[in-house]
Amino acid sequence: MPVISLTTDFGLDDPYVGLVKGAILSINPRAHIVDLTHAVPPYDRDQAARTIAWAYPYFPPGTIHVVVVDPGVGSERGMIAFEYDGHLFLGPDNGVFTLVLADGCPRELVAVTNRNYFRSPVSRTFHGRDIFGPVVAHLSRGVPLSALGPSADPGDLVRLSLPQARLLSPGHIAGHVSQVDSFGNLITDIHRDMLKNCGAWDCPDEIRVRCGKKHIQGLADHFNARPPGEALALIGSRDTLEICINQGHAARACGAAAGQSVDLTWPAG
Amino acid sequence: MPVISLTTDFGLDDPYVGLVKGAILSINPRAHIVDLTHAVPPYDRDQAARTIAWAYPYFPPGTIHVVVVDPGVGSERGMIAFEYDGHLFLGPDNGVFTLVLADGCPRELVAVTNRNYFRSPVSRTFHGRDIFGPVVAHLSRGVPLSALGPSADPGDLVRLSLPQARLLSPGHIAGHVSQVDSFGNLITDIHRDMLKNCGAWDCPDEIRVRCGKKHIQGLADHFNARPPGEALALIGSRDTLEICINQGHAARACGAAAGQSVDLTWPAG
Amino acid sequence: MPVISLTTDFGLDDPYVGLVKGAILSINPRAHIVDLTHAVPPYDRDQAARTIAWAYPYFPPGTIHVVVVDPGVGSERGMIAFEYDGHLFLGPDNGVFTLVLADGCPRELVAVTNRNYFRSPVSRTFHGRDIFGPVVAHLSRGVPLSALGPSADPGDLVRLSLPQARLLSPGHIAGHVSQVDSFGNLITDIHRDMLKNCGAWDCPDEIRVRCGKKHIQGLADHFNARPPGEALALIGSRDTLEICINQGHAARACGAAAGQSVDLTWPAG
Repeated sequence: MPVISLTTDFGLDDPYVGLVKGAILSINPRAHIVDLTHAVPPYDRDQAARTIAWAYPYFPPGTIHVVVVDPGVGSERGMIAFEYDGHLFLGPDNGVFTLVLADGCPRELVAVTNRNYFRSPVSRTFHGRDIFGPVVAHLSRGVPLSALGPSADPGDLVRLSLPQARLLSPGHIAGHVSQVDSFGNLITDIHRDMLKNCGAWDCPDEIRVRCGKKHIQGLADHFNARPPGEALALIGSRDTLEICINQGHAARACGAAAGQSVDLTWPAG
Repeated sequence: MPVISLTTDFGLDDPYVGLVKGAILSINPRAHIVDLTHAVPPYDRDQAARTIAWAYPYFPPGTIHVVVVDPGVGSERGMIAFEYDGHLFLGPDNGVFTLVLADGCPRELVAVTNRNYFRSPVSRTFHGRDIFGPVVAHLSRGVPLSALGPSADPGDLVRLSLPQARLLSPGHIAGHVSQVDSFGNLITDIHRDMLKNCGAWDCPDEIRVRCGKKHIQGLADHFNARPPGEALALIGSRDTLEICINQGHAARACGAAAGQSVDLTWPAG
Repeated sequence: MPVISLTTDFGLDDPYVGLVKGAILSINPRAHIVDLTHAVPPYDRDQAARTIAWAYPYFPPGTIHVVVVDPGVGSERGMIAFEYDGHLFLGPDNGVFTLVLADGCPRELVAVTNRNYFRSPVSRTFHGRDIFGPVVAHLSRGVPLSALGPSADPGDLVRLSLPQARLLSPGHIAGHVSQVDSFGNLITDIHRDMLKNCGAWDCPDEIRVRCGKKHIQGLADHFNARPPGEALALIGSRDTLEICINQGHAARACGAAAGQSVDLTWPAG
């Protein structure tokens, strides 16, 4: 019985997540459902795209990942399901899978249109309960992707254009805070591989990171590499640069929020 | 093995919900427990009553629904368990099941008194852990309702008198905001059936909705029927009227909160 | 298949808890995981120590309790696993198990060092995902403690020195608010047994409790022993003194927070 992961912007204050689970269990009472997060900011497809792309490889192969961050619910926007990298994915065709598919092509991609697998009637404001929940439940019972609707062309998928870190000049990467976590850590879009590819990785102590008024010298390798209360930069568990305060709250200390620019410089050449 | 749904006002900051689950699993390690919500406002039996009545039909038949919103915990208030509409329900006799039973009578109703199914000793401030958790665990293992205590008379149940929308005059329904969800949508107590029964449903474009200073013309059928940022009224996933802002936060925009009056008018006759 | 309980300071806004679960399920897809709480205040080992010590006995024997409140993650701090009182425990060696082991000695204690049971590579900022998750998954599949690493000496464990209530003089106990729960109840460190041992228990109506400017006469036995809105003191579900307002919020009413001193006096001798 495969695991089902849920990622939504429903929050946990309302019974919406519980209703999605009820809908799933009504079709597959033995479904194994795991909350990835329900705290994607409302309607924030960028954040949903980052979250699922980061998280899915840590789940068992065969997991079915449902992403319902869906400001277009009830409109003519499409719904898709596909297999990629040994996992299944289900959600609206609104770009939330942009980063899952950044480097590859789905093995099988279908438009979800077969109403036999939906609840009836379908509310036009709650497809999580009436479409995505029932459909994932059927998938978890072994219904094949091909039963859900016709094949779709990966080239036609809606894709988000997300801000991306880039090499501005030799010795200078310009990136962004993509997220602030609940510890106040500033997660950026500057990936470890980028540092390696452009040579910064060779001189970790000479890297300088600037975020707002905060300047940090050198890369640390864990939080406690600096005394409590001191700012540090490191490659975090997403394999991207993070700006942190050991046992503190970097977002408050730096006055930074998602979207803020981050500059990483080093003596190049 | 039946599903157990939990609805409480415990929140998720304290380990209370985890302790209820521990108590359940100590008796039935294979119990399948689903959180419906733990964010009912503290002591708010009205909200609990609305939540469980809305949600239970989306769970599989045979689900056991536990509702612990219980300001009278430890006092002489009763505890009840019953079967209704193919589901089982367990909680304090304080009105939280008022709306589940609004249109019908329980198939079997018992007063929960048999201490053999309680934890021992019983804390007088945490019946979720020491009574409701253990009792639902036993129910989920097949203990019949009749074992929990003597039959009770449905006519003796505590019932809440909840505000209700009503037809003030031909062409005018006066209702209320019953809840604000985490998207800021204003959920009202004006049911789709009421619109149908009094003729408003026949002229959806001529309906006018007023909530505070906000006036809305016509019923939409989904959020995107209006441009982002614009207010709209629709019948939501609870089958009741909701006032929403497409991709926005209606409660902030309207300055409205639970309890606020909502007027729906149309050209009658 | 044993239950796994999780206690962290990760919060539920980020996908961290979901990733730990994904890591567990990747090794043991049938693991039964229960959230005890993820709302321990960031880095607050004292609170983690109190939570797990209170909660674990309510879980089934054989449950594996993972506690990840770990400001030293990635440093040279140790990691431990042990059996105590029929349960298994896993976490950093930073004192979070101080109160679990307050009155006894672990039956078997090991330093967790065997990287064969870790994910590879290990992030130095997220041991929950890369070490504790995988290790508990292996434990839940029957890997013995002894496989995780060498035996350790209980005398070498890091222990927290937590504030403790004490008998200041005959008829006077000085304690503290150890936690404020989401209902606003002030949980103290004054245990029922202490009241019994020093005689206060014999005259519950003559006990006086002072917390800030609030004076309370007598011990109640449940919230409704006083009218709504009135302050009361009782022995709560942790078997410690709590200061509460019936259907109200004591922390706001008393202007009190964790750490505040609480005095309990009675006519001694």
